[in-house]
Amino acid sequence: MSRLWHWSRRCSRIFTRPNSSLASQLNSVTDADVLHFSKILSSPSSVLSILPSISTSPEELDIYNNDWMGKYFGKSTTVLKPKTTEEVSQIVKWCNDKRIGIVPQGGNTGLVGGSVPLRDEVILSLSNMTQVRSFDPISGILVTDAGCILQSLTDYVAPHNHIMPLDLGAKGSCQIGGNVSTNAGGLRLLRYGSLHGSVLGLEVVLPDGSILDQLTTLRKDNTGYDLKQLFIGAEGTLGIITGVSILTPPAPQASNNVILALPRFENVLPLYKTVKRQLSEILSAFEFIDRTAYDLAVKHGQGRALSEEEVEGAECFVLVETSGGRREHDEEKLNDLLESLLEAEEPLINTGVLAQNPAQFSSLWALREGVTEAVSKEGKAYKYDISVPLSTFKECVDLTRERLRSKGLLNGDQVKAVIGYGHVGDGNLHLNVIAKAYTPEIQDALEPFVFELVASHRGSVSAEHGIGAMKTHALHYSKDETSIAWMKKIKAIFDPNGIMNPGKVLE
Amino acid sequence: MSRLWHWSRRCSRIFTRPNSSLASQLNSVTDADVLHFSKILSSPSSVLSILPSISTSPEELDIYNNDWMGKYFGKSTTVLKPKTTEEVSQIVKWCNDKRIGIVPQGGNTGLVGGSVPLRDEVILSLSNMTQVRSFDPISGILVTDAGCILQSLTDYVAPHNHIMPLDLGAKGSCQIGGNVSTNAGGLRLLRYGSLHGSVLGLEVVLPDGSILDQLTTLRKDNTGYDLKQLFIGAEGTLGIITGVSILTPPAPQASNNVILALPRFENVLPLYKTVKRQLSEILSAFEFIDRTAYDLAVKHGQGRALSEEEVEGAECFVLVETSGGRREHDEEKLNDLLESLLEAEEPLINTGVLAQNPAQFSSLWALREGVTEAVSKEGKAYKYDISVPLSTFKECVDLTRERLRSKGLLNGDQVKAVIGYGHVGDGNLHLNVIAKAYTPEIQDALEPFVFELVASHRGSVSAEHGIGAMKTHALHYSKDETSIAWMKKIKAIFDPNGIMNPGKVLE
Ligand SMILES: Cc1cc2nc3c(=O)[nH]c(=O)nc-3n(C[C@H](O)[C@H](O)[C@H](O)COP(=O)(O)OP(=O)(O)OC[C@H]3O[C@@H](n4cnc5c(N)ncnc54)[C@H](O)[C@@H]3O)c2cc1C
Ligand SMILES: Cc1cc2nc3c(=O)[nH]c(=O)nc-3n(C[C@H](O)[C@H](O)[C@H](O)COP(=O)(O)OP(=O)(O)OC[C@H]3O[C@@H](n4cnc5c(N)ncnc54)[C@H](O)[C@@H]3O)c2cc1C
Repeated sequence: MSRLWHWSRRCSRIFTRPNSSLASQLNSVTDADVLHFSKILSSPSSVLSILPSISTSPEELDIYNNDWMGKYFGKSTTVLKPKTTEEVSQIVKWCNDKRIGIVPQGGNTGLVGGSVPLRDEVILSLSNMTQVRSFDPISGILVTDAGCILQSLTDYVAPHNHIMPLDLGAKGSCQIGGNVSTNAGGLRLLRYGSLHGSVLGLEVVLPDGSILDQLTTLRKDNTGYDLKQLFIGAEGTLGIITGVSILTPPAPQASNNVILALPRFENVLPLYKTVKRQLSEILSAFEFIDRTAYDLAVKHGQGRALSEEEVEGAECFVLVETSGGRREHDEEKLNDLLESLLEAEEPLINTGVLAQNPAQFSSLWALREGVTEAVSKEGKAYKYDISVPLSTFKECVDLTRERLRSKGLLNGDQVKAVIGYGHVGDGNLHLNVIAKAYTPEIQDALEPFVFELVASHRGSVSAEHGIGAMKTHALHYSKDETSIAWMKKIKAIFDPNGIMNPGKVLE
Repeated sequence: MSRLWHWSRRCSRIFTRPNSSLASQLNSVTDADVLHFSKILSSPSSVLSILPSISTSPEELDIYNNDWMGKYFGKSTTVLKPKTTEEVSQIVKWCNDKRIGIVPQGGNTGLVGGSVPLRDEVILSLSNMTQVRSFDPISGILVTDAGCILQSLTDYVAPHNHIMPLDLGAKGSCQIGGNVSTNAGGLRLLRYGSLHGSVLGLEVVLPDGSILDQLTTLRKDNTGYDLKQLFIGAEGTLGIITGVSILTPPAPQASNNVILALPRFENVLPLYKTVKRQLSEILSAFEFIDRTAYDLAVKHGQGRALSEEEVEGAECFVLVETSGGRREHDEEKLNDLLESLLEAEEPLINTGVLAQNPAQFSSLWALREGVTEAVSKEGKAYKYDISVPLSTFKECVDLTRERLRSKGLLNGDQVKAVIGYGHVGDGNLHLNVIAKAYTPEIQDALEPFVFELVASHRGSVSAEHGIGAMKTHALHYSKDETSIAWMKKIKAIFDPNGIMNPGKVLE
C-alpha cells in the first residue's frame, strides 16, 4: 500500500483518472461471487481468495497483485485459475453480468503495469491452461493454450527442428498469451517479423463471455476482416486470449556473431546497409550499444570485455549475429564481410571481434544483453523504450543528456549516466537515464520532454512494452486524436461495461 | 446488361440480396452531385460522368464498370479520380451526407468482383494518386500513395537493391492500395510473409470523410490497438486507403530453381520437410502441380516440357526456388539437396531438372505460372482458391473429380478435367474444374460441395482472392456466426450508412 501511495504521488496522472471513473462503475467481488466461481472451476485449488469462503492468506496473493518491477501493487481479493476455455467463458460472463472488473494475467513479466489490478479487480490467471493442442511438423504450425510458457514451447518444438518466432529475456516466465497480448518484440523480430504476421489464429473469450473462435491453422485466409489482429497488442483490454495458433520457423543450423567497434555514430547507418547487403538472409541481429552503455556493462562484469586496443577510440559498438542453414557458408560470408570492412579505404569500423566458439558467442551476447542488468546495478533507471528513425538514435540520447545538464541534474549526485542501446534493425532505441534515486525533478525534466522528442520524429513512445497503466497519459504523443477516438469506439463495442483490464491502454 | 442478367440468374444469391437492401438506402448520383465533385477536384479530367454536366461517352466508363474477368458489370454513371487525400476526404464526406455508395477501385484486377459497382455507385479510382512519398534505403521503408502500381514500385526500389515484399501476375496493373485492400498473397509469401506483417502504416479516409493517419514508418509501435490491420483485406468496405507505408526486403543476389518429378503425391510432404531443412533460409518457393495440370500446361505450350523419360511415372511435380545472398553457396546447397534426394534408399523423387541459366529458370517458372493460362485456353474454369491442410490437397482434387463422375458430368462433353496446383508452402490449393461451358448442373454439383469439403477441413474458401461480391454467400463456410456477427458490428461502426463498397464482403 505505502508503495502504491508513494508512486502515485509522483505520477498522479497515471493513477487517479482511471481510478475515479472505475470506482463509480465496477463492483468488488463478494463472497457470493467467490462461491459461484468455485462452482464453475473444476478444481478447488483454482480459486484463491482472501474472502471468507476460501480464506487464502493475503500473502499468497502478493505475487499476483505485484508486478515484475515491484512498481505496481493491486488490491485484488481473488485470483481465478481456470483450466479450460469454457471455464474462462463462464467466469467472464458472470463478471460481466455483475460488473466486476477482470485483469487477465499471464506470466506477469510485463513492464508497464498492465498485468496487475489498479484496484480490486479479479485476477484471471492463465497459468493452468498449459496444453499444446496440436503441432504440425511439416508446416510448423503450433496450436496451444494461451498459458503455455514461452520457454516450454521452445522446448516442445525443438526436437522437430523448429523454433518459436520470438525470443526474449523473460522467456522462462512469460506466456504465449501474454506475448500475443503485448505484441512482444524481442530478439528475433528482425529475422522473423512481428506477431501480426506469425500469429495465424486466436481463440478469445470476449467481455460478454462469448467465445470468438478464429483458431485457424491457415497461412492464407482472406475471408473478411482479420479480427484477431485487434487482440494482438490489446493488453487484455478487449478480451481474454485462451488459444493461439502460431507459425514456427525451421531452426537455423548455425549461428555466429561478431562485435564491431565504431569510431563515430555516423558510421552505424552505412555499416548497417553494408552488413545487410553482404549477409543478406543470414543476418539475424544488428544491435547497437553506445560507449557509455558498453563501459557500464564491462564495469558490472557483463560478458567479455574487449581489449584496450580494441575499444580505443570507439564511440559505439554493434553486435552482428548470423543464423543460417550451413556453418561453412555463413562463416565465409562473415569473414568476407569483416575483411572488406577492415580493408576499406575509409573504414567504417576500428576493429571487429569474431566469436570462435559457443562460449565466445554467448559472452559477446552477454555484453549486449547485460546492459539491462548493469543499469539496474548502477542505479535507478528511467527507461524509455522508443521507436525513432535510425538516424536520430544519437541525437535522442545527446539531447536528453543536454536537457538534464541544462537543468543542473547531470552530476554524480542526481543523474549518473544517459545511455542508448537497442535494436537498430527494428528502429527501437532503449534510452535509459540512470539516477541515484527517483526524484520529481528528474521526472519533470524528462517528461514530457522525451515524449515530445519522440513525437517530433513521428516515433513511438512504446516500441515493444505497450501502454499498460504506465503510459496511458502519453498515448497521444504517438497516436492522433482520430486514432484514439477510434480505439475508444472499438473498446466500447467489445467491452461496453468496461470490465476488461480497466484503466489500461486507454484512460 | 444482358451479361449481368445472365450471370445473376445463375448466382441469384450473390446479386439479389445486396441489391434489394441497397436500393432502399442509397441514392443515385445526380447532376448536382457531379457539379459539386467538379469543384472538389483540382483538374477537370478527374471527373468522368455520363450525366449532362460532364457528358462523358458511356463507353469510356466501361473499363471502370467491368471487372477483369468480364463477369461483373456495374452501372456507375460517374468515376472520380482524386489526386490528393484531401480530395478523397471531401468526396467521401459529400457521399456520406448524400447517402451515395462508393466503390474504391485500384487496378481493377481483383478476381471476386469486388472492384466494380453492383448498381450505380460512384467509382472512386485511385489511379491519379501515384506519388512515392518517401523511401529510406537504410531501413527499406517505402511510403507511397495508394494508387502506385506494384510494378512501378518494384522498379522504384530496385536501384536501391530492394524488392517489394509481394509479387503477383497482375503486377503491371494492380495498385499497392488494392494489394493491401485484398491482402494479396502471391509468389513471395512463403519467404516474406503476409502484408499483415510487412505493412507498417496506412492512411485511410473513413466513410465519414475523416482521415485516419496511421502512416508511421516504425517497425515496432505498441501504442494501443493496431487499427490499420482492419483495413488490410477489408476490400474497400471500411474506408479508402490513400497511403501505404511498407517494409521492403533487400533484393536477393541470386535465384535458382529446379523441377522435381514425384512418383506419388504422398511424397510431397516428406519432400517439403527435407527441402525446408536443407535449403533453410534460401528456400523461396515450393509450388505443386499435379500431373493433369502439368500435361495441360505442356499441351498449351507453357514453359519447357520435360523429356518423356523425365516425366515417366510421375504423379505430380514440385517446383523449388531458392533466393539467396551468394550464388556459389546457393548452388552448392541445391546440388547437395538433389544428390541426397536421388541417392536416397527410397527416393522421394523420380528425377529433378535444374535450371542452368536465366532462360531455363524462366521456362521452369513458366510451366507453373502457365497453368492459369492453359486452363483458360482449355475451357471454362470453375476456380476455387482454397486453403486446406497440405495433407489433403490430393484428397480435395480426387473427391471433387469423384463427385463430378458420380453426377455423370466427368466426360468430354461437360467437364474436361479437374486439376490441382498451388503454393504448398502456404497451404494454398488452386482447385480448378475445366468445363466445356458454364452450366447450372456443374455449378450445382460443385457448390456447396467444394465449400463443405473445405469447411470439413477447417479450411478457407478464399485463401488469397477475397470475398468481394462473389463469395459473400460462402463466407459462413470459413467463419463462424460469432465472427460474422463481429464483422458486421465493425462494419456498422465504421460505415453506419453502408456507403462503402456496398454488397461486398458482407451480404
Ligand atoms: C527480463 C525481461 C525481459 C523482457 N524482454 C522483452 C523484450 O525483449 N521484448 C518485449 O517486447 N518485451 C519484453 N519484456 C516484457 C514482457 O516480458 C513481455 O511483454 C511479455 O510478452 C509479457 O508476457 P506475460 O505472459 O508475462 O504477460 P503479463 O505480464 O502477465 O501481461 C502483460 C499484458 O498482457 C495481458 N495478458 C496476459 N495474458 C493474457 C491473455 N491470455 N489474454 C489477454 N490478455 C493477457 C495482461 O493483462 C497485461 O496487460 C521483458 C520483460 C522482462 C521481465
Ligand atoms: C493475372 C492475375 C494474377 C493474380 N495473381 C494473384 C496472386 O498471385 N495472389 C493474389 O492474392 N491475388 C492475385 N490476383 C488478384 C488481384 O490482382 C489482387 O487481388 C490485387 O491485389 C488487386 O489489386 P487492384 O489494385 O487491382 O485492386 P482492385 O481490383 O481495383 O480492387 C480489389 C478490391 O480492393 C478494393 N480496393 C482497391 N483499391 C483500394 C483502396 N485504395 N482503398 C480501399 N479499397 C481498395 C476494391 O474496392 C476491391 O474490393 C491476380 C489477378 C490477376 C488478374
